[in-house]
Amino acid sequence: MSSQPEHPTLLIPGPIEFDDAVLQSMSHFSQSHVGAPFVATFGETLTMLRKLFKTTDPSSQPFVISGSGTLGWDLVAANLAEPGDDVLVLHSGYFADSFADCFETYGVKATQLKAPIGSRPQLPEIEKALKEKKYKLLTVTHVDTSTGVLSELKSLSELVHRVSPETLIIVDGVCSVGCEDIEFDEWKLDGVITASQKAIGVPAGLSISMYSGRAIKAFQSRKTPPGSYFASMKNWLPIMQNYEAKKASYFATPSPQLIHALHTSLTQILSRPLSERFAAHRATSLKIKKAVADLGLKQVALDPADQANGMTAIYLPENVKAPELLPNLLKKGVIFAGGLHKEIATKYIRFGHMGVSVTDPKRDDIDRAIKALEAGLSDAGYQKA
Amino acid sequence: MSSQPEHPTLLIPGPIEFDDAVLQSMSHFSQSHVGAPFVATFGETLTMLRKLFKTTDPSSQPFVISGSGTLGWDLVAANLAEPGDDVLVLHSGYFADSFADCFETYGVKATQLKAPIGSRPQLPEIEKALKEKKYKLLTVTHVDTSTGVLSELKSLSELVHRVSPETLIIVDGVCSVGCEDIEFDEWKLDGVITASQKAIGVPAGLSISMYSGRAIKAFQSRKTPPGSYFASMKNWLPIMQNYEAKKASYFATPSPQLIHALHTSLTQILSRPLSERFAAHRATSLKIKKAVADLGLKQVALDPADQANGMTAIYLPENVKAPELLPNLLKKGVIFAGGLHKEIATKYIRFGHMGVSVTDPKRDDIDRAIKALEAGLSDAGYQKA
Repeated sequence: MSSQPEHPTLLIPGPIEFDDAVLQSMSHFSQSHVGAPFVATFGETLTMLRKLFKTTDPSSQPFVISGSGTLGWDLVAANLAEPGDDVLVLHSGYFADSFADCFETYGVKATQLKAPIGSRPQLPEIEKALKEKKYKLLTVTHVDTSTGVLSELKSLSELVHRVSPETLIIVDGVCSVGCEDIEFDEWKLDGVITASQKAIGVPAGLSISMYSGRAIKAFQSRKTPPGSYFASMKNWLPIMQNYEAKKASYFATPSPQLIHALHTSLTQILSRPLSERFAAHRATSLKIKKAVADLGLKQVALDPADQANGMTAIYLPENVKAPELLPNLLKKGVIFAGGLHKEIATKYIRFGHMGVSVTDPKRDDIDRAIKALEAGLSDAGYQKA
Repeated sequence: MSSQPEHPTLLIPGPIEFDDAVLQSMSHFSQSHVGAPFVATFGETLTMLRKLFKTTDPSSQPFVISGSGTLGWDLVAANLAEPGDDVLVLHSGYFADSFADCFETYGVKATQLKAPIGSRPQLPEIEKALKEKKYKLLTVTHVDTSTGVLSELKSLSELVHRVSPETLIIVDGVCSVGCEDIEFDEWKLDGVITASQKAIGVPAGLSISMYSGRAIKAFQSRKTPPGSYFASMKNWLPIMQNYEAKKASYFATPSPQLIHALHTSLTQILSRPLSERFAAHRATSLKIKKAVADLGLKQVALDPADQANGMTAIYLPENVKAPELLPNLLKKGVIFAGGLHKEIATKYIRFGHMGVSVTDPKRDDIDRAIKALEAGLSDAGYQKA
């Protein structure tokens, strides 16, 4: 069914399992990064990203840069805020701490609004914070990969636009773009950063992001130059605009192979309605969450409304240890991830369910994983109370 | 002979033609970035880099990070110098200007020592500059990809160690590592930055670099935090050390596919003596340079001692225009690059001769390219005077 050699099924919250055609695109023969064939491929890729993010506003601007998801934080912190600016970082797990660190690196004052583990800051406290201080931008982790907590963007954006309309709304969508609905224009978002290796279904190595015309204007009216060279929008903006206009342009060499893989994956994703894709992720997620509950286990994300559709963070029973369970699951052909949130890292595991493992009807990854988890817990002596 | 589909031969100064096995490694099935199999691959890759750079000093430190060659500049500028520090940038073409820009982004004062187009700063003027001011570090472009000018590292390093022993010696080896000899330990270099897509023979997407123990110490004794988040050695140093010790570690997700391709290419490169590899590049380069001279054409790099062995920048005859010649060469199955140095961009073309096009005896890329160039010039009405 697959041209890939037999291998354990990778069901961590990224990298995910990849489609054969996407992996084959990674082996594309070498092309000049400024030659017409590759320029066309890159240009089409940028245009397809607009569809994935649901933006038809011509002032929106996609960026695709060699790097990891982390580079997206630098793009935001070094370009959309200036030294001394205040930014509000909504905290729903591990990644907000790092994003705040990134802001501080560039002299930007990050105020974190922290929620207890397993939940997210609530609208009334966000409203209070926004009224207390003027924030240049607010960041929200759409899905925190360490906790599986999903944030709600639509009502958050409405709140920000009502209470502090000048504050830019920046979404860390590393673990959400491609598996959670994002209505970039309709929800009036100003920036969504993501990476290739999660629900977009392309090997790691690309930082992918989308900014509103308002965000680009904010960048262009900076009083100080950008704080980073490699992550400078001044350096990259003309490059992205030129490639999308099918004009060769050079700042740093892009990766034709990764861009080809992204082109292939976006073509596949956009060949069917996005609503179907999101519904499939939701249905699979509900099935997994039901199986977890049936096993008598609890999720890290407490409120069902806050639970991500592309991953599930599962607390282990008292006597089951991740360093024993995970290798046993590997023997059964399934790779899950350990905990990442420092305060509870040893107490839980993470099950990623994004991309072809969810959408490809020829794959039985999810059912095998649920069975493996049940058997693994049983092997460890666990019985539902 | 190759499993790649028929395609025009890419002979620009990077990306280059890739070996079949390297391209196949790009399609590696998905692996966890923190799972034992990939951790072993990444660890071995880092260790092999020590051999490529010829360093056996255990305090040397390799870095492999998702990004382009440009990211190496940020690694240097944001970690090895501090705001207010003076650095000396030796200028042999386009890339020194950009490196200087990168330093200025991080508040570091870059003094450029510029040579006329086609040459490089000479030792006496470098000595004079080093005596006039105390420089935290000096940068040299080993091969400037815009001009094909090769810099001499051994005597430069001797000079710096004699005149200003505290100054770190940083080499931009983007267009040299893998085709020009680099004796990291013996020449007492402190940093060499490069990228995957040139003579290392791996698709673009990796920033690859090596630092001396002295450079790492200089970083560790900074008074201010690093100026970048994504390019912070504070964030990456423990990750690289852990991977090489075969311990899983996380700061940002590496690209298993690109790392597999690098592992494959380094295994191939190190399977034969490096001296053979450099001799092959030199012999091919001399053959190309003779063909260029036989055609009555001049190189941008003036002095034969300053001419790179992995590329040749060739001035066009008066009446031959690159926008007509290059498409004609493409029709003949060969891709050359246009000029890049702003002041002379329209007047010359660049011929890259690195990697498998040079070392694989089954390929006739170079001979075909020389013949295509001769025929293309003839088609354009050029006759040797």
